Amino acid sequence: MRVLHHYMLSSASRFVRIYLDEQKMEFLPKLEEYWKSEAAFLKLNVAGTVPVLVEDDGTVLCGAYVIAEYFDDILQEKPLLQGRPAERAEIRRLFDWLCRRFDRDVMQPLLNERLIRRMTGGGVPSSVVIRTALSNLGVHLAYFNHLVEHRQWLAGSKMSIADLMAAASLSVLDFMNDINWDDWGELKIWYARIKSRPSFRPLLADQVTGMSPPGHYTNLDF
Amino acid sequence: MRVLHHYMLSSASRFVRIYLDEQKMEFLPKLEEYWKSEAAFLKLNVAGTVPVLVEDDGTVLCGAYVIAEYFDDILQEKPLLQGRPAERAEIRRLFDWLCRRFDRDVMQPLLNERLIRRMTGGGVPSSVVIRTALSNLGVHLAYFNHLVEHRQWLAGSKMSIADLMAAASLSVLDFMNDINWDDWGELKIWYARIKSRPSFRPLLADQVTGMSPPGHYTNLDF
Repeated sequence: MRVLHHYMLSSASRFVRIYLDEQKMEFLPKLEEYWKSEAAFLKLNVAGTVPVLVEDDGTVLCGAYVIAEYFDDILQEKPLLQGRPAERAEIRRLFDWLCRRFDRDVMQPLLNERLIRRMTGGGVPSSVVIRTALSNLGVHLAYFNHLVEHRQWLAGSKMSIADLMAAASLSVLDFMNDINWDDWGELKIWYARIKSRPSFRPLLADQVTGMSPPGHYTNLDF
Repeated sequence: MRVLHHYMLSSASRFVRIYLDEQKMEFLPKLEEYWKSEAAFLKLNVAGTVPVLVEDDGTVLCGAYVIAEYFDDILQEKPLLQGRPAERAEIRRLFDWLCRRFDRDVMQPLLNERLIRRMTGGGVPSSVVIRTALSNLGVHLAYFNHLVEHRQWLAGSKMSIADLMAAASLSVLDFMNDINWDDWGELKIWYARIKSRPSFRPLLADQVTGMSPPGHYTNLDF
């Protein structure tokens, strides 16, 4: 069976878990503490990052972008990247926004300060970095909220990889209790819709040593 | 005619210029000093980044990933992203490496310190940031050199978008005289091959106020 090397609080890993489940593809999850840079894992992905998906035939797929486009290449039906070329371009624009800009401005700094530092004995988290990331988060959430005020889903009228990546990222932030949902009415409705999908259930059961999500994290009527 | 909003020393912009030329697609280049965040440009791309390509039918395409995949969707022949799904995955892995990791470790810090600071009156460049970026550059060049020692092109036996993005990035560094080519024998041969292509000529003619490339920059036998 295909094996997914992932980490619970990596949003790109969460994206792939939801993606595979939405596409009804089975996989064996393998927890990877990627910051340890173990030789066997670096051999799979020299970049040392998760997610990495190893297919039955030995094909190694590194990263959310590569994995999503790989399945777009081989699947006949494309429910998560569908539409005319211009519609697919809009999906990819937002997917890219989340993988790069949102990741750089919000996810990486927060995970580095709160998780990686602790795991690697890297000292006290920087409150300046955390504050900046949370301030960035507000700007991004305002944009996402604006989008779903005007569209059914993030990139248009259909659920797409942009929604899955956004939901995966926000679920990590929600786990860390960084989102005040009352401030983002439309986005909260959108998130509740994705959160109640069966593909999301395994994420809500994730446990991370030394970190407890807030009460509303697993609540579908939060 | 399609219009490409670009900046001379943006590697993603350079990538699209080479890409369009390789695909024999005409375009009108429009210089964009994107750090000024002018309203008209933000309306095209709310992220305020280059490149942005506006097609004849008004379709707006933001960023190298979106542009490359858009043309992969609509073109019948796919000379720059060709192969079986696993081969395309390898091309995309390296393309993503360049767009995200290399950009974050090397390109962004160098451009921020040397160009954006000067353009925005942001004070003296940080020698620490520049030194770290140049040290990162060495690690990346060693990897690229290793790849082209074992393969004809970066991602395999055919030239691909990974080569174009790598060459676009290295050409910006070469403009700033940051690469000692004598240290990277195989990579130098690979770069000379791409540099001598007609699609590369417009890049070699670029002029940037207040910056002069080294003598070997335009020399095809450097």
